Amino acid sequence: MSEYTGYDGNSLEFLKTNNISIGDSVKILADITYSGIIMPRYEHSDDKHIVLKLKSGYNIGLEISKIEKVEKNPSTEKIVEKNEKVEKNEHLPNILLLSTGGTIASKIDYRTGAVTPVLTAEELNSSVPELAKIANIDAKVLFSEYSENIMPMHWLKIAEEINQYSKSEYSGIIIAHGTDTMHYTSSYLSFSLAGFPIPIVLVGSQRSSDRASSDAALNLIGATKFLTECKTNGIFIAMHQDENDETIACHIGTRVRKNHTSKRGAFQTVGDDPAFLIVNNEIHNNMKTDFFTDKKFEPKIKINEKVALVKYHPGYDPSLLKHIIDSNYKAIIFEGTGLGHIGENMYSMVKMANEKGIFMGMTSQCIDGRVRMTVYESGRDLLDLGIIPLENMIPEIALVKAMWVTGNTENHDEIKEIMLNRIACEFSK
Amino acid sequence: MSEYTGYDGNSLEFLKTNNISIGDSVKILADITYSGIIMPRYEHSDDKHIVLKLKSGYNIGLEISKIEKVEKNPSTEKIVEKNEKVEKNEHLPNILLLSTGGTIASKIDYRTGAVTPVLTAEELNSSVPELAKIANIDAKVLFSEYSENIMPMHWLKIAEEINQYSKSEYSGIIIAHGTDTMHYTSSYLSFSLAGFPIPIVLVGSQRSSDRASSDAALNLIGATKFLTECKTNGIFIAMHQDENDETIACHIGTRVRKNHTSKRGAFQTVGDDPAFLIVNNEIHNNMKTDFFTDKKFEPKIKINEKVALVKYHPGYDPSLLKHIIDSNYKAIIFEGTGLGHIGENMYSMVKMANEKGIFMGMTSQCIDGRVRMTVYESGRDLLDLGIIPLENMIPEIALVKAMWVTGNTENHDEIKEIMLNRIACEFSK
Repeated sequence: MSEYTGYDGNSLEFLKTNNISIGDSVKILADITYSGIIMPRYEHSDDKHIVLKLKSGYNIGLEISKIEKVEKNPSTEKIVEKNEKVEKNEHLPNILLLSTGGTIASKIDYRTGAVTPVLTAEELNSSVPELAKIANIDAKVLFSEYSENIMPMHWLKIAEEINQYSKSEYSGIIIAHGTDTMHYTSSYLSFSLAGFPIPIVLVGSQRSSDRASSDAALNLIGATKFLTECKTNGIFIAMHQDENDETIACHIGTRVRKNHTSKRGAFQTVGDDPAFLIVNNEIHNNMKTDFFTDKKFEPKIKINEKVALVKYHPGYDPSLLKHIIDSNYKAIIFEGTGLGHIGENMYSMVKMANEKGIFMGMTSQCIDGRVRMTVYESGRDLLDLGIIPLENMIPEIALVKAMWVTGNTENHDEIKEIMLNRIACEFSK
Repeated sequence: MSEYTGYDGNSLEFLKTNNISIGDSVKILADITYSGIIMPRYEHSDDKHIVLKLKSGYNIGLEISKIEKVEKNPSTEKIVEKNEKVEKNEHLPNILLLSTGGTIASKIDYRTGAVTPVLTAEELNSSVPELAKIANIDAKVLFSEYSENIMPMHWLKIAEEINQYSKSEYSGIIIAHGTDTMHYTSSYLSFSLAGFPIPIVLVGSQRSSDRASSDAALNLIGATKFLTECKTNGIFIAMHQDENDETIACHIGTRVRKNHTSKRGAFQTVGDDPAFLIVNNEIHNNMKTDFFTDKKFEPKIKINEKVALVKYHPGYDPSLLKHIIDSNYKAIIFEGTGLGHIGENMYSMVKMANEKGIFMGMTSQCIDGRVRMTVYESGRDLLDLGIIPLENMIPEIALVKAMWVTGNTENHDEIKEIMLNRIACEFSK
C-alpha cells in the first residue's frame, strides 16, 4: 500500500495540494466539521471523493469540491501503518478471519455503480486498523462468492476448513460472508460443528467496505471484540442492531433471520433478544443459559440436498408436491399457515409421501411463534398423516437441519429423533 | 336461547342454586373479584365452568369449584335480550356481517380439546351484545371453512357476494374469516373489488368465540366501530394490536401479514404503522393519504391459479423450477434473498421461462424492505433475464396479485404493466 493507494486524478491532486496522505489524522470543514483518518481507496474508485474514517469506526466519503478547509492534526502519529505488515502482539488473543465473499469483501465500481466481490481477507483486515488493537488477525480467503451463490457444497468447505482449527491457538474464528444467505450458512455450521471448542462468528455488511457509510468496519470490530470476551462457544452472526452505530448484536446462528432487504439492522433473532450485545465496545450477555458450553464436539460434516421447502398458500397445486415426492426427496419441510396447517387438498399427497418414508416436518410461515397441531381438527389430521411439528424452528433453519440430518443418516426413526433433538439452540422448549 | 343455554350438570346446578341465569349482571369472588354478565355456552361445553363477559368485552371462564361467592347486581337489567331478535334501530348505521368460518366462528369441543367451525353468523352476532349498540347487523353464513382450506374459488365467492352490495344501504361489510390465510383473501378482494364504495373489513380471532379469553368480541366490536366511523373505503383487516385489550389495529388488506402463530397481536402491517387504530373505542387515522377514496369501482372478479411462488434457498434444485415451467404456469413470483437475488444455477431455467413468455416477478424473503436489483452484478443479470422487481410488495400478496392479473388478461405487456401499477396500496413508491 502506498501513501495514496486508490487515489488518482482530482482526489490525488487534492491530497498532494493539502500535503496529506493515507493514515493522516485530519480535521475537514465541509457542510460540518469532520475529524478522522484518511483511508485508502480501491482501484477504479472515482476521483471526486476522499474517504475518512471517523472515530466511530464509520467510513464516510467526502466530495472534494465541497471541502472548504483541511487541517492536519500534527500531534497524532499516522495510525495506519503503511507498507508494513502488522507485527503480532503476544499479549493479544489470536483470531482467524476466513473470507468467503459478499458485500463485506466487495467494492463498488464507480463506473457502473455496481458492487463486485474482490477484496482479499488481508485487505479487509488492513482496512480496519482498529482490529490490530483487539487481536492478532490471521486472514485467509476461502472463496469469493456473493451469498446467493453459496451452495451446500460451500457450507461443507467452510466446515471442513474450520474443523482443522479445533485444537489451534485461535480464540475464535470470524467468517466474512454475504448477508443474503448468512443465516443458512450459520445454521449449517451450528449443526455440523456443534460443540466446536471456540466461538465462531459470521459477519457481513449491508454496504461495501470501501464505500462511504459502510457498516463493515463496525461489524468486524464488534465481532472481534465478541470473540475475545464472550466466554462461550457456539456459532453466531454479528451485525448492526439497528440504524445507529452504537450497538452490534450477536445472534445465535440458528435463531436468526435477515428481515429487511437493506437496513443495517436487517438481522434479528426471531422471537427473542439477541444473545449478546456489544454496546459502545462493552459486551452484554443476554444468553439465558450456557447452552453451548457443555456440548461434546463430534463434527458431522455431511449433507443431503434432496430436501424441499414447501410453502403452502391458497391455490398451491398438490401436483407440485407430487413432483417432489416422485423426484426421490428424502425430506419435506412444510412452511404451513398459522399454527402449522396446509389445505385438505394436500392430504392425499401427504399420505403418499408418508408411505414412501419421506420425513415431513411442519414449520410456520408466520416465522415467529410455535407450531401446535393439536388445537384444530385439521392439525390432528396432519399429525395422523405423519407430519412432525417442529416446535418454533424457523422454516429456513429447519430446511438446513433436515439437509444435515438426512446427510448423516438414512434411518427414518433416527431422522425423526434428531430433528426433534435440540442440537444447537434451533428451537426452545 | 334459554336462560341456561349450554349449561348442564354442575354448572347448571351452580346457576340455579345461586338464582342467576344468562344475561344477569353479577359480582363473583374467586381469586379476585370479577364483575360482568353471565354468557351462554355452546353444546358439549364442560360442566365445570361458567363464562362471564367482563366490561372490557373480554370473555373469561371461571371454574365453579373456585368461586367463593356470587352476588347478583339487582339494579341493572339483563343485558342480553333472550329469545328475542334484536330490533333495528333506525338511528344506527347498517352493517353486513358475512361469515366464512375460522376460529372466530368456531367453538371448542371440551371432550377432545379441539376446535371446530360451527357458529352461525347469527350466533356470532348475538354472542356480542355490544354490537347492537353500534350498528344494526345483518348476518349471513357464506360457508364454513378453516382458512387453510380457503381456496381461490372461495375468494371468488366472497367477491361475487360483496359485489351485489355496491349500491346497498350498508355502511360497511364485515367478513368473519380464519386468520391463517386472511391476508391472502384480503389482498384478493383488494384487487378484484378496488374502488368498492364502502369499507370492507376482515376480522378473525386467535381463540374461539365461546372460549374464556377469546379475542373475537373485541375484534368484532373494533371492526364495527371502524366501519361506522372510518370515512374511507378500501379493504382492511382488524385484529388486536398486541396482547392487551386496549387497541384494535386496522391494517390495509395488501400490506399485512400474520407474523405470529398464536399471539392476539399476530397481524402486522409490514414496514409501517397500521392504517387505523381503535384505542379504547376511539378511532385514530394514521393513513398518510386518502389512497382509496378516489378509485373508480370496476370489479374484476377473475382468477388464474397457474401462478407459482418460488422461495429460493441454497440447495434449491433448478429442476423444480423446470417442472413449473413445463406445467404451463403463467407467472412465477420469486421470493429471492436480500435485495432480490437467486443463485446463478437458476439462470438457465429463468432464461427458459422468459423465452416461454412466463411473467417473472421478484420479491424478497426478508419480507420487509424494498427489492433493488441494480446494486449487484447478479441483480443486473436477473433484470437482463426478464425478471421484474416488484418494489416492496409482500411475497404472498404479489402471488395473489399475479393470480388476479393473469386471470384478467393474457397479454404479457399488460400483465407487466398492471403488476407494476399500484392498484390497492400493495406497494409504496
